[in-house]
Amino acid sequence: MKSSLIVVGKALRYNLPFLNYIHSTITKHLNLPDQTVYIDKNDKDLFFVLEESISHADEIVIVTSNDSFNLVNKVIATLGEETLELKGGMLIPSKAVRYETDCYLLAREGKYINVIKTTENKKLPPIFIDNTNESSLFSIINIDEDSLKILVEPLAQNYEIRITPTTIIDGWISVEAVSNKYGNLESFFKAVKSLLPQKVIQHPDVIEHICTCLETHGKTLSVAESCTGGLIASMLTEHSGVSAVFKGGIVSYANEIKASWLGVNEETLERHGAVSELCVREMLEGVLNASLADYAIATSGIAGPTGGSIEKPVGTVFVGARDKEGNVLIERLLLEGDRHYIQRQSAYHAFKLLLHVGETLFLK
Amino acid sequence: MKSSLIVVGKALRYNLPFLNYIHSTITKHLNLPDQTVYIDKNDKDLFFVLEESISHADEIVIVTSNDSFNLVNKVIATLGEETLELKGGMLIPSKAVRYETDCYLLAREGKYINVIKTTENKKLPPIFIDNTNESSLFSIINIDEDSLKILVEPLAQNYEIRITPTTIIDGWISVEAVSNKYGNLESFFKAVKSLLPQKVIQHPDVIEHICTCLETHGKTLSVAESCTGGLIASMLTEHSGVSAVFKGGIVSYANEIKASWLGVNEETLERHGAVSELCVREMLEGVLNASLADYAIATSGIAGPTGGSIEKPVGTVFVGARDKEGNVLIERLLLEGDRHYIQRQSAYHAFKLLLHVGETLFLK
Repeated sequence: MKSSLIVVGKALRYNLPFLNYIHSTITKHLNLPDQTVYIDKNDKDLFFVLEESISHADEIVIVTSNDSFNLVNKVIATLGEETLELKGGMLIPSKAVRYETDCYLLAREGKYINVIKTTENKKLPPIFIDNTNESSLFSIINIDEDSLKILVEPLAQNYEIRITPTTIIDGWISVEAVSNKYGNLESFFKAVKSLLPQKVIQHPDVIEHICTCLETHGKTLSVAESCTGGLIASMLTEHSGVSAVFKGGIVSYANEIKASWLGVNEETLERHGAVSELCVREMLEGVLNASLADYAIATSGIAGPTGGSIEKPVGTVFVGARDKEGNVLIERLLLEGDRHYIQRQSAYHAFKLLLHVGETLFLK
Repeated sequence: MKSSLIVVGKALRYNLPFLNYIHSTITKHLNLPDQTVYIDKNDKDLFFVLEESISHADEIVIVTSNDSFNLVNKVIATLGEETLELKGGMLIPSKAVRYETDCYLLAREGKYINVIKTTENKKLPPIFIDNTNESSLFSIINIDEDSLKILVEPLAQNYEIRITPTTIIDGWISVEAVSNKYGNLESFFKAVKSLLPQKVIQHPDVIEHICTCLETHGKTLSVAESCTGGLIASMLTEHSGVSAVFKGGIVSYANEIKASWLGVNEETLERHGAVSELCVREMLEGVLNASLADYAIATSGIAGPTGGSIEKPVGTVFVGARDKEGNVLIERLLLEGDRHYIQRQSAYHAFKLLLHVGETLFLK
């Protein structure tokens, strides 16, 4: 089974927020498409690209801009030797098996082709296609990829599961598990969990898992961010219903804000600098005091590309997590990548520490 | 000129933070690739997909996982009827015109093929390819797409520029301008600016433009976010050097945090609710007082999918911007899309208001 996403209309290409919305909606139906093609409606290869993409995939979603919908419909009809018919106020290929305003579905030689017309800042029309693969994403922490292969691969074969592990950060591996015909994902998960106690998070989204566990136990979280600059708060608040567990966050970018909002000692900042274990320790304490939350995470580091020194090169980041009883973990990292990737890796490392500080909640 | 990005290795596909890093690095060299293909190294179509992608594009970047680099090199050599040679410790196609550790460049029949080997959490090797199109992104605010076409399109033709406008939010259009052979981007920009005074931002990234203008004038900014939950702070801190102008942000998700951190009146919250003009007004005042910044932006709304009511359905968002002299703009929005797209549109609307409140700085 191969899937393809084709985006027609050059204007869509430059509208990154809208494109993100399209992507995140499509991937709920197609998992991650094997191929993504962007093409302008005036591109002379349009016919050819559509023909080729349709011939090599089984599930095709074609997203068009407002002004390229009609043209795409003509091309799709021609490719299938169909005529255009007026259905639901749209001129669409005659053999459409399903349609609603601004979208239709074709079933052609065992393939599904779903065409949708989009308008910026508007809700997407419904998507009819649905990938039927039984697959699942989960995470394993505190394990390296080699050990995972040695330990989990044989189990996967036993249960007729194919797994694809990928290292998100050191000690945090995300695994896609796809069930073969006679495979059994549930039994596989049980076996992995009993093989690796307190290491498996059976949820495609670890952050959502954290929020759910906090809510179940009536606990709350707050964050104090320096180098991640709001990214951790933003990753949390991407999830609906987080307001029950996320009290708030402080982005303390300037040093005087660290002092005035979080109560970090000026002496700490002077003697150790903002990028220090002690500063993160005080940020954790400060945000817990200010928010009265049960758990806190904090970051301070040099995301670059400027601001590095010999002692603390770019990529030096301190991350920490703490509960209100005073259990605290702080780590010094040396990360690679561009500014944004360093920020994102820092965020994942901070969440990993939170998993450990609250392991009775999160790693049962 | 067509460009293509091919990602080989299934594990890369599921590592979204790393994939984002790859994308943002590649797009500095290729603008936005016309085609993006993901393929597993064990996929029986690998040879075919590489052949096809190379034949239809002029600039091809192939990103491989650690364990698929050698296989890809073999395929690429076979396709070009080259042998493999040991260069720089790698077995790569014999006609590579340039190589460094983990990467090489081929020039084949007027096409450029750049292969790079990647490892999670590590810096990417250098990318040799560089798109030579003279193109530029800029933004126009307070104009609709139809007026833009009527006013700017003839100018573009005069200067031999092709433009592609896309509406980011209502009244904020991002425009890609590509110069033809004899085109003149600089003169075109001057003409557009004098045609549309105080509406043109000649910078590919409006947020970076805001930061630069603030820094030039020695001004600072702080933010108070409810429904955007850290996204605005995160969009600001994606830019290096923002520490000179961004003092800090407060993500006041819980109502008690709005009261205790920002000084929002409990009466306001009780009588008008957190999603109200008055609440945003007090959030702006609160964060300015707490940070002593010159400008502030604030948001409060219902990003959904739950939490809506008849009076305030999902997508109802109040955004505001203010300076310390008390000039303030607040807007009530009704946005469509999923949770994340509503958050992102809110953020852009808030930045748009900031552009207006600080127009002497930002819209000269």
